[in-house]
Amino acid sequence: MPGGYPAKAFAGEVVPFRVVAFREGHDRIGVHLRLTGPSGEESLHRLTALKDGTDGWVAEVAIDLPGVWKYRFEAFADDFATWAHAAEVKADAGVDIPVMCALGAQLLTAAAAEPDRSAAERRALKAAAKRLKTPDADELHAVSTDETLLRAFAARPAASLGSVGEWMTLTVERPLAGVGAWYEFFPRSEGAVRRKDGTVKSGTFRTAAKRLPGVAGMGFDVIYIVPVHPIGTTNRKGRNNTLTAEPGDPGSPYAIGAPEGGHDAIHPELGTLKDFRAFVRAAKAQNLEVAMDLALQASPDHPWVTEHPEWFTTLPDGTIAYAENPPKKYQDIYPLNFDNDPDGIYAEMLRVVRHWVAQGVKIFRVDNPHTKPLEFWEWLIAEINAEDPDVIFLAEAFTRPAVMRALAAVGFQQSYSYFTWRNTKAELEEFLTSVSHETSDYMRPNLFVNTHDILTEYLQYGGRAAYRIRACIAATAGPVYGVYAGYELVENVARPGSEENIDNEKYEFKFRDWEGAEERGESLAPLLRRLNEIRRQHPALRQLRNISFHWSDDDAVLVYSKHLDAAFTGTGRPDTLIVVANVDPHSVRETTVHLDTRIWGVTPGDEYEVEDLLTGATWTWKDHNYVRLDAFAEPVHILRVKEPS
Amino acid sequence: MPGGYPAKAFAGEVVPFRVVAFREGHDRIGVHLRLTGPSGEESLHRLTALKDGTDGWVAEVAIDLPGVWKYRFEAFADDFATWAHAAEVKADAGVDIPVMCALGAQLLTAAAAEPDRSAAERRALKAAAKRLKTPDADELHAVSTDETLLRAFAARPAASLGSVGEWMTLTVERPLAGVGAWYEFFPRSEGAVRRKDGTVKSGTFRTAAKRLPGVAGMGFDVIYIVPVHPIGTTNRKGRNNTLTAEPGDPGSPYAIGAPEGGHDAIHPELGTLKDFRAFVRAAKAQNLEVAMDLALQASPDHPWVTEHPEWFTTLPDGTIAYAENPPKKYQDIYPLNFDNDPDGIYAEMLRVVRHWVAQGVKIFRVDNPHTKPLEFWEWLIAEINAEDPDVIFLAEAFTRPAVMRALAAVGFQQSYSYFTWRNTKAELEEFLTSVSHETSDYMRPNLFVNTHDILTEYLQYGGRAAYRIRACIAATAGPVYGVYAGYELVENVARPGSEENIDNEKYEFKFRDWEGAEERGESLAPLLRRLNEIRRQHPALRQLRNISFHWSDDDAVLVYSKHLDAAFTGTGRPDTLIVVANVDPHSVRETTVHLDTRIWGVTPGDEYEVEDLLTGATWTWKDHNYVRLDAFAEPVHILRVKEPS
Repeated sequence: MPGGYPAKAFAGEVVPFRVVAFREGHDRIGVHLRLTGPSGEESLHRLTALKDGTDGWVAEVAIDLPGVWKYRFEAFADDFATWAHAAEVKADAGVDIPVMCALGAQLLTAAAAEPDRSAAERRALKAAAKRLKTPDADELHAVSTDETLLRAFAARPAASLGSVGEWMTLTVERPLAGVGAWYEFFPRSEGAVRRKDGTVKSGTFRTAAKRLPGVAGMGFDVIYIVPVHPIGTTNRKGRNNTLTAEPGDPGSPYAIGAPEGGHDAIHPELGTLKDFRAFVRAAKAQNLEVAMDLALQASPDHPWVTEHPEWFTTLPDGTIAYAENPPKKYQDIYPLNFDNDPDGIYAEMLRVVRHWVAQGVKIFRVDNPHTKPLEFWEWLIAEINAEDPDVIFLAEAFTRPAVMRALAAVGFQQSYSYFTWRNTKAELEEFLTSVSHETSDYMRPNLFVNTHDILTEYLQYGGRAAYRIRACIAATAGPVYGVYAGYELVENVARPGSEENIDNEKYEFKFRDWEGAEERGESLAPLLRRLNEIRRQHPALRQLRNISFHWSDDDAVLVYSKHLDAAFTGTGRPDTLIVVANVDPHSVRETTVHLDTRIWGVTPGDEYEVEDLLTGATWTWKDHNYVRLDAFAEPVHILRVKEPS
Repeated sequence: MPGGYPAKAFAGEVVPFRVVAFREGHDRIGVHLRLTGPSGEESLHRLTALKDGTDGWVAEVAIDLPGVWKYRFEAFADDFATWAHAAEVKADAGVDIPVMCALGAQLLTAAAAEPDRSAAERRALKAAAKRLKTPDADELHAVSTDETLLRAFAARPAASLGSVGEWMTLTVERPLAGVGAWYEFFPRSEGAVRRKDGTVKSGTFRTAAKRLPGVAGMGFDVIYIVPVHPIGTTNRKGRNNTLTAEPGDPGSPYAIGAPEGGHDAIHPELGTLKDFRAFVRAAKAQNLEVAMDLALQASPDHPWVTEHPEWFTTLPDGTIAYAENPPKKYQDIYPLNFDNDPDGIYAEMLRVVRHWVAQGVKIFRVDNPHTKPLEFWEWLIAEINAEDPDVIFLAEAFTRPAVMRALAAVGFQQSYSYFTWRNTKAELEEFLTSVSHETSDYMRPNLFVNTHDILTEYLQYGGRAAYRIRACIAATAGPVYGVYAGYELVENVARPGSEENIDNEKYEFKFRDWEGAEERGESLAPLLRRLNEIRRQHPALRQLRNISFHWSDDDAVLVYSKHLDAAFTGTGRPDTLIVVANVDPHSVRETTVHLDTRIWGVTPGDEYEVEDLLTGATWTWKDHNYVRLDAFAEPVHILRVKEPS
């Protein structure tokens, strides 16, 4: 954990508790995890030794309740295991039979006297002790390998010489902090009407709410809306980020603040605060939660500018500094400067967030958090979560790894990630391994396939196939993913030389015909709908850490599985999906995939049945299997491993 | 660091102090290391940003004094660097010239007023501020890139918004803890005489001392002697580890203890405690330090067995348990059991070590420390080092990585390592990278090429070439290495099926003709002598962390360099060695090596001169060079990079 911050999990997550434990010499040890839930209930879990020479131990536990959990590791000398190992070897070698029988009888007799063992167990232990009273190699071998005894000592070991670790904290958040399908849209575009004179009448919360059933119908969980505050007019950007807005250009919603108000206000063209609340309720009625944008910056017209010029940087010529990354300038935006009046800024930001929480918002997508102090976020998130632990913050920090990780460590529940820029098989394997196995104790990547700011070359040049491939991978490789409205329409034309859509929705209204596109068979909505359905049906897809990579003979064919043991699915049956994706959107690939089938309990070489959840096709598979993936027809298999009937 | 133990260094070590530091946004930062030496003197060191996207920073500092050092990192906003970057970019773009000039003048004027700047510096700063009074793009560009100003601010940055880390501890030990060439031998063999009846008269400390000039003459620093205590007779092992000793068999020196005494006594056949002290003095006179074996176990005849049976494991049949690893048994040795009377055992072991420290011993080679409690070693080493910080403990723990690392972390100054089993190019690169760059903050590997217990297959089957190759690598790849007597005679016959010498010296006397072998040209002593001479002449070889691996087109040709900057050599000139080793002892290899010459300050493609320190040959090299390495003639180049004259 960076900086010693506590580890995190989400309710429903299967958490691997790991520790390195050993003792001197050759005697066997055991390790327990002692776990205390938010309401004080305690449980004890036996760890399993990893067989990789690292002295690592692990116990996987499904964490069910949000709140603060405490845990510690307790190691002990496992006297029965030490004896049983020596007894078996010596019985077979015919040495030290009397002394090993005597030691065994001692151990078993002592265990039989333990009051919290069942009567049946005590009888079995006493009987075994009796069998060792007369030294005999065969009896010694039999007792040292007796399954009933092994089970009795597995449940309650003959432990001595305990060594107890420090109590540690695990912060557990609600399920949506770790699992969910997100859909981003601009409320003003939904229901916008182009008038005869060419000007546009903005959509409102009322008209935008009409889109909610469509989004919910695709199976999304979160509806993320870009800022809905009044937009400044000074230096307002025109279409395609031009410096001068034409009359009627709506301006970037990130240029927050106008005479009508700032971060606590609603853009008059969208409606009123009451309309906003109605929108939040309408979403809730569709099982959608609203995620609001938190962009802590101001247009030159923001009330803060006149009321609190000390929150900005004043230049020697008396003007306030624009946002810039020399020589680039963002003239419609003043960045905050936290150095002059941190207390004032902290208090105002807390007020703003509380205000929206009071309107029913429990999720905030935070714009550019890496340009504000880390300790500010640590403080703000802690303050808000102390009042309401259900509030979730998503960090939009497309920056260096150390900064992204630090933001996650100090409190952000989710993080945008490098996913959009990881498109080859090798890149995806490296990236997904990192987020699932290296940083998963504190950072949860939200695998957005695109945003209003990001249209990667892969999507620009990969056609419809690229959109299908990326959606399939995002929806299955991690438990949180997202799309920005228009993805389903394959809006893939970029502003020349840039990595964003031409006619970016940040600067203008967009008019889209969702139903028409779907009727004409042009929409990817049916695919998104099916992917979200598969996610709901398969608990293995709702975990972050359970991904395993397999092999193929083709550099463009990515293979991974997501597996959840029967103990954790809630159905009593394991859940296993195998994803085979052709990540080259321009070709047909035929190759052989090589699978470590032991992960889903199949002996290498044995047969099992798989069903493609996208097409319904079924095959008999083994550990090495032929696949053919046609980018233009069927670029990805999402296979369910069927249980033998 | 495992378990949060403090980092370690040795006096003379160039230590890289690393930290991850960043701030929000795009402004520049700087980082200082504040370092406090054992006597309280403080120094400040500027860190350099790594250019690898990790936000890592590093400062290399040569640590000169043993003792407890404290250090902390101090980060700050580097206002001049932030301004200079923006000013340069904006001057070139022709934007914001007046405001950038005004900001610069402010900054420079404030710096000029700082009282601890020199008069010349203040003048330069004032003059620069004056140049910016009138806005001008050319002046702005000139001032923002002025070398004098950059130097002034590098020495004393315009720092604001400091952020200070926690104080941390660095334990610095004497040079021999980190640098040294070790030579192991059995004192009883040196001067042993075979009588006419076939029995042997043991060598003594007096006769053994006659070997010291020979060892010192080869340039070794440490003379390590196996245990010199009385040896038990009960269950004494015979030659080649047989269960019954013949009359006259001396027994394993690891079966410690007899009626004549235990761990604080001297074997009567070797002499007296006075003789031992004389041996230690004789070694010192040859610039050799004696390392003593600390094997905490007892023969059945050890006084502890009758005086403290509770320090051993008593079986149900009343006997004491032998050492064993079922079904293997070591009938001549009783292991200690620390569980019954830890206080008694701790006190006795402290007494034993103090006893030998009082006889002049400052180095202990600890036998099998991983079979005793970790906390015992932590306590014992701390107790001894509190009384005498010069005492060095070497851990002979050939066990799992986590255990080896923990022993180093809790206090052992040096560790035997997996070096003997790392013989291919790939194995050596992985192993040397790990010990030099991953665990070097707390673990120092002693690269023994062989021991009385280890004769690897590589040495068994690789002939004389294998011995030469391994000595060259051990002596140059790490600052601490060792050989066991007989290595120079290429004693490479193993007991069949084992990984140790036939007729192991543990169970019998060895008679060796050092001078004769050298006269006949059969000895590797001249090579060892030359290697130790090279080590003395080249400070780059006396560092652990400064190894870099290069490339060759041949899987058997290993290439690495050891480089030390001019700031750290004491000569004012850098020191660079390039080692090219053919690790296949059975063939001639011709290949091309590819070098990152930037490490020694040579632009890729440029020429420089190298001299082979083993043969005196010189070549003009570039970044890609042809080599021919004949295992039977010249398997290794040890090349010195010559400074251009």
